[in-house]
Amino acid sequence: MIRLLSTFIAIVVSISIFAQDRTQDLMPVPKSIKSSGASFYISKNFSIGVIGNPGERVYKEATRALRRLDNRMGFFFGQGIISSADSSRTNSLLIEVNHPAELKLYEDESYTLFSDAQQVRIIANTDLGAIRGLETLQQLLSVDDVGYYFPGVEISDAPRFPWRGLLLDITLHWMPMDVILRTLDGMAAVKMNVLHLHLTEDQMFGIESKVYPLLHEVGAEGNYYTQEEIKKIIAYADQRGIRIVPEFDVPGHCTSWLKAYPELASVKRNYELQRYFGVFDPSLDVTKEYTYEFLDNLFTEMAALFPDEYFHIGGDENTGKDWDLNPDIKAYMDKKGMTTYRELETEFIQRLLPILEKNGKKMMGWDEILRPGVPHDIMIQSWRGTESLVEAAKNGYTGLLSTGYYIDLIQPTDFHYLVDPIPANTDLTSEQQKFIVGGEATMWTEHVTPETVDSRIWPRTAAIAERLWSASTVANVDDMYRRLDFISLLLEGLGSTHIRNKGVLMRRLANSYDTEALEVLVDVIEPLKIYERNAGDTMYTVFSPYTKIADVATPDQKVAREFRNHVASYCATRDTLLRNDILEYLWLWKGNHKKFMEIVKRSPVLEEATGLSENLSKIAAVGLEAFNYLDRNESPLAGWKARSFEITKKAKEQGGRCDLQVVTAIEELIETAEK
Amino acid sequence: MIRLLSTFIAIVVSISIFAQDRTQDLMPVPKSIKSSGASFYISKNFSIGVIGNPGERVYKEATRALRRLDNRMGFFFGQGIISSADSSRTNSLLIEVNHPAELKLYEDESYTLFSDAQQVRIIANTDLGAIRGLETLQQLLSVDDVGYYFPGVEISDAPRFPWRGLLLDITLHWMPMDVILRTLDGMAAVKMNVLHLHLTEDQMFGIESKVYPLLHEVGAEGNYYTQEEIKKIIAYADQRGIRIVPEFDVPGHCTSWLKAYPELASVKRNYELQRYFGVFDPSLDVTKEYTYEFLDNLFTEMAALFPDEYFHIGGDENTGKDWDLNPDIKAYMDKKGMTTYRELETEFIQRLLPILEKNGKKMMGWDEILRPGVPHDIMIQSWRGTESLVEAAKNGYTGLLSTGYYIDLIQPTDFHYLVDPIPANTDLTSEQQKFIVGGEATMWTEHVTPETVDSRIWPRTAAIAERLWSASTVANVDDMYRRLDFISLLLEGLGSTHIRNKGVLMRRLANSYDTEALEVLVDVIEPLKIYERNAGDTMYTVFSPYTKIADVATPDQKVAREFRNHVASYCATRDTLLRNDILEYLWLWKGNHKKFMEIVKRSPVLEEATGLSENLSKIAAVGLEAFNYLDRNESPLAGWKARSFEITKKAKEQGGRCDLQVVTAIEELIETAEK
Repeated sequence: MIRLLSTFIAIVVSISIFAQDRTQDLMPVPKSIKSSGASFYISKNFSIGVIGNPGERVYKEATRALRRLDNRMGFFFGQGIISSADSSRTNSLLIEVNHPAELKLYEDESYTLFSDAQQVRIIANTDLGAIRGLETLQQLLSVDDVGYYFPGVEISDAPRFPWRGLLLDITLHWMPMDVILRTLDGMAAVKMNVLHLHLTEDQMFGIESKVYPLLHEVGAEGNYYTQEEIKKIIAYADQRGIRIVPEFDVPGHCTSWLKAYPELASVKRNYELQRYFGVFDPSLDVTKEYTYEFLDNLFTEMAALFPDEYFHIGGDENTGKDWDLNPDIKAYMDKKGMTTYRELETEFIQRLLPILEKNGKKMMGWDEILRPGVPHDIMIQSWRGTESLVEAAKNGYTGLLSTGYYIDLIQPTDFHYLVDPIPANTDLTSEQQKFIVGGEATMWTEHVTPETVDSRIWPRTAAIAERLWSASTVANVDDMYRRLDFISLLLEGLGSTHIRNKGVLMRRLANSYDTEALEVLVDVIEPLKIYERNAGDTMYTVFSPYTKIADVATPDQKVAREFRNHVASYCATRDTLLRNDILEYLWLWKGNHKKFMEIVKRSPVLEEATGLSENLSKIAAVGLEAFNYLDRNESPLAGWKARSFEITKKAKEQGGRCDLQVVTAIEELIETAEK
Repeated sequence: MIRLLSTFIAIVVSISIFAQDRTQDLMPVPKSIKSSGASFYISKNFSIGVIGNPGERVYKEATRALRRLDNRMGFFFGQGIISSADSSRTNSLLIEVNHPAELKLYEDESYTLFSDAQQVRIIANTDLGAIRGLETLQQLLSVDDVGYYFPGVEISDAPRFPWRGLLLDITLHWMPMDVILRTLDGMAAVKMNVLHLHLTEDQMFGIESKVYPLLHEVGAEGNYYTQEEIKKIIAYADQRGIRIVPEFDVPGHCTSWLKAYPELASVKRNYELQRYFGVFDPSLDVTKEYTYEFLDNLFTEMAALFPDEYFHIGGDENTGKDWDLNPDIKAYMDKKGMTTYRELETEFIQRLLPILEKNGKKMMGWDEILRPGVPHDIMIQSWRGTESLVEAAKNGYTGLLSTGYYIDLIQPTDFHYLVDPIPANTDLTSEQQKFIVGGEATMWTEHVTPETVDSRIWPRTAAIAERLWSASTVANVDDMYRRLDFISLLLEGLGSTHIRNKGVLMRRLANSYDTEALEVLVDVIEPLKIYERNAGDTMYTVFSPYTKIADVATPDQKVAREFRNHVASYCATRDTLLRNDILEYLWLWKGNHKKFMEIVKRSPVLEEATGLSENLSKIAAVGLEAFNYLDRNESPLAGWKARSFEITKKAKEQGGRCDLQVVTAIEELIETAEK
């Protein structure tokens, strides 16, 4: 007998993101948008024209936009590659550009987008503006009974901050080219304009140097971008109006440099690449002339490779412990009358400045580079908080915020969303506020691989992109999450793997196509937050498998978040529909553990999550008990609350470096039943 | 009121591929395998050692094997990068290699794999053999109540054919680097050893030439591999024991060359890249000395880039029509006393031979290159059938089969599986048979993009890999499909997108996360087969959207195939469990159309599939009627059969370039009810 089919009940969150006018769904929200009469219906004859004085970028992006639209609507548009020949004013979409932009800070990215029944027009001073407008148009694509259309709108748009970045670390886990390219596509879709590549670390030197080839030959174990690949990244980003800012982190975080060129080191030892994550002691010997010669040659080489005006030299987390071990450094400091490492670091920063300057670069670095005497054209990237930015601004230094945008730390999207580079209560004058140029989300890659990195970046970074583009008053969390669902699908369509790879990881984990019970669990857990996952920095190494339950679990588990919201609403309103929805989940979770254990039997790698699964069943049972009381409007038996809280307390324990995200909601049900 | 949750019944095919001993699941099936006592249980202390005289390849592949195993079991193995320091005989897995191989045809790929409770050993004459053995080991990983283990086995293995290739065309649709690299990983997993890159076409010249840079600058529109990238591909393949054979297709299929260098052309005209697919007339003028100088310079450049001893010059489908238009060519032929283009082509081939020879290359080409006087070291790739291979073999020419392995044509895997390069009824002597060295699956990319190409290559190419590796007697189709399910998950784990991208395409098509009703339909349709999809070669261009229903539909729809099998079994046995399974599907399909139309409302791109969906509902209703008669053992009413066949006939019509795959099964039910 063959048992071909098994049936089960699956619960999906129904999302009404289809078949609707997209005017209210844009992310980032534009500066101004109003409806302007009839919609523009799209047909097979849709075409794009470009007029004015555009550059190559616009033609390429217009061609890409055309294909992207066709891929969604399937019309087989007749137009192929858009060129200067496509300059008729009668095209369905007409793009008007005054001049090509230079890709640099403060460049004009504004545009207007106007659509009515006859035509869609994007008008921009620079091609960058037009490119931003094309992304808005992708998001505007709507559907009704007649077909696909662009709603009639008048949009006037420009960013609040000129620096809207993402730091991608490619050293703690190597990120191949395809990760970079698809990340750039996603960034462009939400109008971000800086990709900051963290290229060197204790664990790896991730870029080819022709001047000092041992850096990548010895320091990268085969994982580095060639200069040709860097040029490809830069060109790909440039087309999308995104700057590439490279970071070469000195004087700490440099073990890989020292393995390649030990003569740079403060301490003579046999350097090996770091395999653990954390902060290490190896440091450049900044008292040797050789070090400056070396940095001069290297930075000159790299400055020529990267066209951006900013050059990031890191500067963070130099522990000083290796300097302690070197009597020559002590002697040097004594001779110079220096009493603290801070003074020595200041000298180091000051000696780097002319190297960058002669190469036409401005220095960028972490908070640590703000030293007495540094020129005012440096850029401070703050990982220490808005305070240091405020202090910098008051002293006339430009800076951007990363504190609060550490997307690797698995905090909820709304947390990041509500972090403002210039908080409402700032005491900065409006002139001083201009020194704060924006922010950067940071994707440190200790605990992600190319397979999982997208699930940390997207869709959440879109909310940070909105914070940096839109008005500070655009801050409704529920509306942000609503729009994020829609943007998430667009990002997937551009190549992001944040949705699709969930299935890959689950099938591998379950050792099977049948991942149902695993998914029920995964939907209500998140990896441990902040720096809790890697307790003591000793649990993981660069060789560790990142294919476990904590890797398929993602931040912002939607099922869990909505369950919490629904419980909160229910406790306030006692709405019957909400009650039924909540009960559906409670029954599902209560029964899930047995099914989950069937998977574990076949897949011992999941044993670490049995506690989570069991606790989920137990708290669901408690939730069902709460409804027994709530439904009958009865007071719980004496001791029920205490016993129940014992169960929920236990359910807060981690398992497989994850924790359950619905425990507080169950506690709310207990409390409500008790009242 | 928020309606958060909707429930629906989802049917999944339950697959018992977990929690079992994998000894019987290997693909390709090894030459000999027997059980040998106790299993080897895997712990965190698992380690790999290498002894003998191995090359770099083995260390790299052993390191990769270790990480792949750890990614599946999550042990956090302590061992990092495996090197010559890991030569202790007490490692859990001991690899013994006599000498590093040269990566070329006929190189020894044999190995033995022995495992018992104490140790796993892979012993091979060459590192290639050891690498094949490591892939067998990946497939052997089993699970039982105790944990993960390698079953105790003695495997002695070697390939039947030395040439087990995949042709990947990167010209009809551009395939970026990541497609190539993940394809190589998949090929290695099923022991294939040749990736044949079809690099040039009428539509594109896909590789950088430094000697004739206009070839890629003008002929590629930005989509080409740089020479650095080619080197990366070659190194990546080499590590996995895979040869890279490049194809530069001449004298036809060369429009892109002529756009770049019109002086090569037979006819003076304004050449543009071809945008449609098919066979075109532009051709090299093979009577000009310039052409030979050009090919000499270009092939000399490319011969140095590609280390393989074979160099593919295409040679196929030169229509001769452009030669007709050039009186100089006529005059040349008259002067030489040539009366057919075949003679001119023969001269062309003969003039290319010394160019390749001086570069140390043997010529490879399609059937057309087998001409009088060509030397016996050329390699014929047959797209015309086994007959030409047989003829070649009888005349002492080596060849390999591609006819029957055209995986782009959407034929069922079992069709390809049963095509043998040397059919059982061959009249070739065993000496002659040796001239047939294997085969190549061909992935022509007219109708695929990087997003869909994997769904045509995998898992089906694994069955062709087995045909070329395993004994001809390994030919049980049901068992092949059973093992293919397991291999499919392994391939996904290596990066193939053939499973995950189904969801991506469906969500884009449905314009929503809710793809349930679409999936029910997609699971029983396949794209039109052979060359039917692109009727008259005029429906599609290189700009067309390949994101429609025919693109999410794949060959070998499992649900449809198993439904057909179950109906056949039921009709023979009247088994009750089968009846219930079949009914479950019939009810699902009957009710699906209404739900599907809800999706179409939001997603007009799916309108082209409404006929398919409606027909599926209708034939399901007919199937249910058949069961009414079958269950009651009653004869159908007069006319019922004819009316039912009207419905099934209509259901055979295509929709959205797809057709239903369960119609014949319904007809079988009708016939059975009628009996």
